[in-house]
Amino acid sequence: MVHNFNAGPSILPREVFEEASRAILNFNDTGLSILEFGHRTPLFENVMGEAISLVKELMQLNADKEVMFLHGGASTQFFQVPMNLLDEDALAAYLDCGIWGTKAIKEAKQFGHVEVVASSKDRNYSYIPKGYKITSDAAYFHYTTNNTVEGTQMHSIPDTVVPLVADMSSDILSRSMDFNRFSLIYAGAQKNIGAAGVNLVIADKNILGKTKRKIPSMMDYRQHIEHGSMLNTPPVFAVYVCLLTLRWLKKTGGVAAIEKLNREKAGLLYDTLDASTLFKPTVAKEDRSLMNVVFVLDDPEKEKAFLQLCKQEGMIGVKGHRSVGGFRVSLYNAMPLESVKQLTALMKAFEQRHV
Amino acid sequence: MVHNFNAGPSILPREVFEEASRAILNFNDTGLSILEFGHRTPLFENVMGEAISLVKELMQLNADKEVMFLHGGASTQFFQVPMNLLDEDALAAYLDCGIWGTKAIKEAKQFGHVEVVASSKDRNYSYIPKGYKITSDAAYFHYTTNNTVEGTQMHSIPDTVVPLVADMSSDILSRSMDFNRFSLIYAGAQKNIGAAGVNLVIADKNILGKTKRKIPSMMDYRQHIEHGSMLNTPPVFAVYVCLLTLRWLKKTGGVAAIEKLNREKAGLLYDTLDASTLFKPTVAKEDRSLMNVVFVLDDPEKEKAFLQLCKQEGMIGVKGHRSVGGFRVSLYNAMPLESVKQLTALMKAFEQRHV
Repeated sequence: MVHNFNAGPSILPREVFEEASRAILNFNDTGLSILEFGHRTPLFENVMGEAISLVKELMQLNADKEVMFLHGGASTQFFQVPMNLLDEDALAAYLDCGIWGTKAIKEAKQFGHVEVVASSKDRNYSYIPKGYKITSDAAYFHYTTNNTVEGTQMHSIPDTVVPLVADMSSDILSRSMDFNRFSLIYAGAQKNIGAAGVNLVIADKNILGKTKRKIPSMMDYRQHIEHGSMLNTPPVFAVYVCLLTLRWLKKTGGVAAIEKLNREKAGLLYDTLDASTLFKPTVAKEDRSLMNVVFVLDDPEKEKAFLQLCKQEGMIGVKGHRSVGGFRVSLYNAMPLESVKQLTALMKAFEQRHV
Repeated sequence: MVHNFNAGPSILPREVFEEASRAILNFNDTGLSILEFGHRTPLFENVMGEAISLVKELMQLNADKEVMFLHGGASTQFFQVPMNLLDEDALAAYLDCGIWGTKAIKEAKQFGHVEVVASSKDRNYSYIPKGYKITSDAAYFHYTTNNTVEGTQMHSIPDTVVPLVADMSSDILSRSMDFNRFSLIYAGAQKNIGAAGVNLVIADKNILGKTKRKIPSMMDYRQHIEHGSMLNTPPVFAVYVCLLTLRWLKKTGGVAAIEKLNREKAGLLYDTLDASTLFKPTVAKEDRSLMNVVFVLDDPEKEKAFLQLCKQEGMIGVKGHRSVGGFRVSLYNAMPLESVKQLTALMKAFEQRHV
């Protein structure tokens, strides 16, 4: 038994793997593999259509929201967002809360003016800045809802009149939110939605088409909307894995039910950390992420020993990002509570031997 | 038994499906699915590395060629190529031989000047123009080696001093060519390389970095080269399917061996067409594609009847593109000779009943 605490690509439900594996040999009893299946066929159009519908249903989106499945990862969106929304002489406001936000800021600067309204770089991104002001004439305000590397998460939606744009790559579909407050949401699929190689993008149609810039067809959200995410051959299999994962989420009870489970998993791990005299969480308590739990040990030798122990017990993906060190445990939707129980038991046993 | 004559996504070797299906349940005996497998792991780095090496080996590329696996499809390359190679005040020469070339031209015009050196639009793209001149100060000359929709193929490399850029989406790895004569080659994977959702791009490093334009990181070939196609999370599974297909091609004898088979398959079908008084090939004889064979019947009722017969016999993907009508039979690398034999037998039987 492997417990996969990877930050992404990461664990997906077992039944998704099983159905995806079958579809590669025989998709929907057609005698064809999903990998050789034409995308302009009613069967695949149904796959795309159902995936889009399930996103709308699970996120309770208003009718004015458009859902797209696009090639690439969130890194593609770092430039596609300003390319579509930010004129050269206009201003976009960004919050700098970690590695991914920093990258988004860097790409946006190629397209227009960027104001970084606040940053938590001063303390290695271990907290979420508060009390900043967003210029009301900004084209949009961009932030990362969950910081995968640093283990922080925004627990409320910023109160602003400016259109909200959010990178939700690592916490989309993991908790209830008023998703309709966002003008644009994007997320690389390889955490809570499906497999790597596809982006989920949700946009208000009314913020599009305002830039004076010429946009390449493949980068123009409006063209993808018009063609139902079939402007060109989509990443067929990656979209299919999204569909299977979305079906699983619906069957599991949807976003509210998975949030309850996610809170239970994260609660168990943070309680263990708070009770520990050995393991230390690195993040401001009020900004802790439910998805990526980051902690350290004071002694590098002990860190090595604990990593070794995890490996022995089939717990993988526990090593922290090189920028933070220590440990990072990712608890995405498909992670079973049982795995977290085994990990916390291991931590307690390790502590007893090492304190 | 299904005979899959789809134009793309299209048939891949059965053993590729079988191994890909297994890897979704248990990749390389890790107990993990390839869909949940971290890309920054030695095992996946080996997948990427071997795929890149196999491309170099199978295409006999010189050491100065860089091989990349990038997100998206050839449609992404339509703009990524001029974004990297064409300054606003510079000129690129394009050959207009079909739907895909036309789209490439449209995107390039957003970035600089485009000279269409020749076009076969006058006769519905049923031939390849010859005897055109390429301005020697063009930044590059772009053409489509094989026209998937129209069924034409360039059987020699244009003689020019201008850097050659080619869209080889539908005939890459299907025939021997001096690939080193090209400064840049790109191909969507979903025909001869693997599954949809990834592009193969091969570039001379020395044509890069010359534009004054700022290029978004994810669109900058140099950054992808520097990071070994791991600038961001790559489309992990799609790259893995490429690796499996490349391994199969090597085992099958490589490009020369597959070309022999491809010539046999296409020869059989074109011979059948040439001997027929009913079925009519639509393309100039000297420009016939070995990959996509396009033909018509004079009578729409007979076309319908033949399509029905194909369906009955499990032959799918035979219907022509709406812009040409009639039939299009795609004979990519993985298509067995036996399927072509059955199709031509069916054509002959149909002809006997209908002449």
